[in-house]
Amino acid sequence: MRFVLVHGSWHDERCWKAVRTFLECEGHEVHTLTLPGNGERAKPSVTMAETARAVAELIHARELRDVVLVGHSFGGAVVQLAALKLAERLKRLVFYNAYVIENGRSVFSYVPASVAGAFQSLASPDGTLTLPFAFFRDHLMNDADLETARAAYALTSPEPLARSAESLDLTGFAELPVPRSYLYAFGDNVFPAAEFTWHPGMSQRLGAFRLVTIPGGHELMFSDPEALGRGLVVAGRD
Amino acid sequence: MRFVLVHGSWHDERCWKAVRTFLECEGHEVHTLTLPGNGERAKPSVTMAETARAVAELIHARELRDVVLVGHSFGGAVVQLAALKLAERLKRLVFYNAYVIENGRSVFSYVPASVAGAFQSLASPDGTLTLPFAFFRDHLMNDADLETARAAYALTSPEPLARSAESLDLTGFAELPVPRSYLYAFGDNVFPAAEFTWHPGMSQRLGAFRLVTIPGGHELMFSDPEALGRGLVVAGRD
Amino acid sequence: MRFVLVHGSWHDERCWKAVRTFLECEGHEVHTLTLPGNGERAKPSVTMAETARAVAELIHARELRDVVLVGHSFGGAVVQLAALKLAERLKRLVFYNAYVIENGRSVFSYVPASVAGAFQSLASPDGTLTLPFAFFRDHLMNDADLETARAAYALTSPEPLARSAESLDLTGFAELPVPRSYLYAFGDNVFPAAEFTWHPGMSQRLGAFRLVTIPGGHELMFSDPEALGRGLVVAGRD
Repeated sequence: MRFVLVHGSWHDERCWKAVRTFLECEGHEVHTLTLPGNGERAKPSVTMAETARAVAELIHARELRDVVLVGHSFGGAVVQLAALKLAERLKRLVFYNAYVIENGRSVFSYVPASVAGAFQSLASPDGTLTLPFAFFRDHLMNDADLETARAAYALTSPEPLARSAESLDLTGFAELPVPRSYLYAFGDNVFPAAEFTWHPGMSQRLGAFRLVTIPGGHELMFSDPEALGRGLVVAGRD
Repeated sequence: MRFVLVHGSWHDERCWKAVRTFLECEGHEVHTLTLPGNGERAKPSVTMAETARAVAELIHARELRDVVLVGHSFGGAVVQLAALKLAERLKRLVFYNAYVIENGRSVFSYVPASVAGAFQSLASPDGTLTLPFAFFRDHLMNDADLETARAAYALTSPEPLARSAESLDLTGFAELPVPRSYLYAFGDNVFPAAEFTWHPGMSQRLGAFRLVTIPGGHELMFSDPEALGRGLVVAGRD
Repeated sequence: MRFVLVHGSWHDERCWKAVRTFLECEGHEVHTLTLPGNGERAKPSVTMAETARAVAELIHARELRDVVLVGHSFGGAVVQLAALKLAERLKRLVFYNAYVIENGRSVFSYVPASVAGAFQSLASPDGTLTLPFAFFRDHLMNDADLETARAAYALTSPEPLARSAESLDLTGFAELPVPRSYLYAFGDNVFPAAEFTWHPGMSQRLGAFRLVTIPGGHELMFSDPEALGRGLVVAGRD
C-alpha cells in the first residue's frame, strides 16, 4: 500500500518515525509531511486551506496515485478537505481517532465544554496552545510509560488555534466515491468519554465505513507503533 | 460440551466448518444444520415457525440432551423460538452478536432506519435479499483480509425476507429456566453503532446472562474461527 | 511502587493473594487489609467512617508514604473517604471497576433499580447480603472457569448493608491534589450495561484521570491476577 500519513495537533512528521519503519519493513510505501503551522514553522495565523493544500501539493508533486490517506486526530479534518481536491488520487481514507467534521462546523465546535474552557485558559497571547505535560501524560499517553511519554512530549510544539475555529466548507465530502475506514483505539482518553467519543461519535459521520478496533490510546505512534502500523494495514487494505 | 450451532442470514451450515474443527479438536460435540430457506433450499416464503422447527427436529431426531444452543445474528431469534419448545433439552443458550427479540416484535423492527432503506432497495422481486460485496466486506468482514472476505462471500446465498418481518410470539421466553450467555465481539460493524448495539442493546433483553467479550467482528467463523470457538467455550461452559 | 489494596464487597484481603505475588515478583511493595465488617469480623452495623479509618490507620501505623492507593468496586468509596485524611501520603489513587461517589450520595444510590430489588429480597435479617452462587458465577466471574469461580466464591462472606446506604460527606474530594487513574476491565458484567457503566459512568466523576482499559471482568484478582497486576502497574506508575 501507498500511505500518506497526516499528523494531528502539536505534532509534526517526526511522530511517524517508528510507524514508517514498521510499514516499510512490511513492504509498504510511506509519505509524511509536516503541516504548515506545526513543527519548527510556527505560524499561528495558518489557515485550514493552507494546511490542506500542503497535503494536496505533496501528492501532486510526488505524482502519487492509489493513496491510502491517513489522518490522525486533527488530521482527520485535514484529510477531509484534501480529499475534496484529490478524490481521484485516493484509494481509501483512514481516520485514526480523528475528527470527522460536518459541513459548516469547526474542529473546536466538537471539543467538550469541560475541555474547551481549559484550552482557552491555556492559550498563549501569540494564538497557540501548548499542552501541559500532566495532561499529555495522563490523557494522551495513558497507555505508555513515563519515559515514552517524555520522549513524545519533547517532539511536540505549540498548536495554532485559529484554524481549528474555522467553519469548514465540506460540501460534497459525503458523496465522494472514496471508501473510508475508521481505526478506533478504544483506550483513548483525550476527552471525557461521557461527553465525546471518536467512535461512534465521529466515525458515524463517514456514512458507510470499515471499522477497525484496537487496544490503546491516542498516541499509538509512540506507545505502540507496531500495533498502529498493523491497524493501518487492516484499515487500508482492499 | 454438546453444541448445536444455528447460523445467521445469508449463511448455511458450511459457515461453521472451521469452528466445528476447532471445537471437535478440543473434545466437544458439534451439531449444525442449514435452516430451511437458506443455502441451496431457497424458499422466500419460509416462515419463522418452519425455521425454528428445523432446530427442534434436529435435536429431537438425534435425541440430544444438555445442549448448548448457539444462535448467530438472525439465528438468535431462531434459538429463542426453538427454546420455547426445547427448554428441557437445553443446558444453556448462547447468543453471538445475535438478535434477542421482544415478544411481539420482528427481526426487521430492530434494523436501524438508515440500513432498512438500503435493504428495501436491494430486495429482489422474488422476496430475497443479496448483500453487495462492498457492504459485506467492510461491514461484516471488516476484520478479515480480502481473500478471506471473498471466500466467505462465495458461501453466502440470498436471504428470504418475509420471515424477518414476522411478529414473533415469544410468550414465556423471559421465564424459561435456561441460563443464557451473550458472546459479544466488540469490533462488529454490521449496523451504525450510534443507532444499534448488540451489547447492551440486544443482550439486555436476556435478563440475567453471562457476558463474554472478545475482539473481532460479525463473521468470526471466517475471520478468526479459533477465537470464536474459544469464546463459545467460555460462553457455554458451566 | 508501594501499593495499598482495598478490597470490595463480600471479599477480604485474601482476594489479593495472587495479585500480591505477581506485584512483589515485579519488585513492588504490597499492603492489604481486611476491612472491618468483612471476612471473619462480621459486623452488620459497621459504618463507612470505621471502614475508611482502617485504611488510614494501616497507612499511618506502617508509616507509608508515596502510596498508590487502590480501591476495587465498593472499595472505591472507601479510598475516596480515606484519601480525604491521607492526601499527603498518596502518590496516586487507582480505581479498578470501582464506585466513585458524588458528595452526599451513597453506594446503593448508584445500583440499578433492577438489581437493587434483587439485593433487597436477598438481604438477611441480620443486615447482611450473601450473593447466590449463580449470580456470582455469571455476573462477577463471567470470564473464569467453574473451578476458579467456586474457589473465589468460597472466599466470600456476607456483606454488611447499612454502610452502603450511608450518604457520604466527600466535600473536598474533587479538589484533592492527588492524581487519579481508572482501571477499566471492559468485560465486567456486574450490572446491566444499559443502566450502569464503570467507565464512563463512574470514572467521569474523577475529573482529570488516566484511563487504563483491559479485557476481563469484575474479579480479575481471581480470573487473571497477572493481567490485573499489570493493569495496576500501568495505572499506578508515574
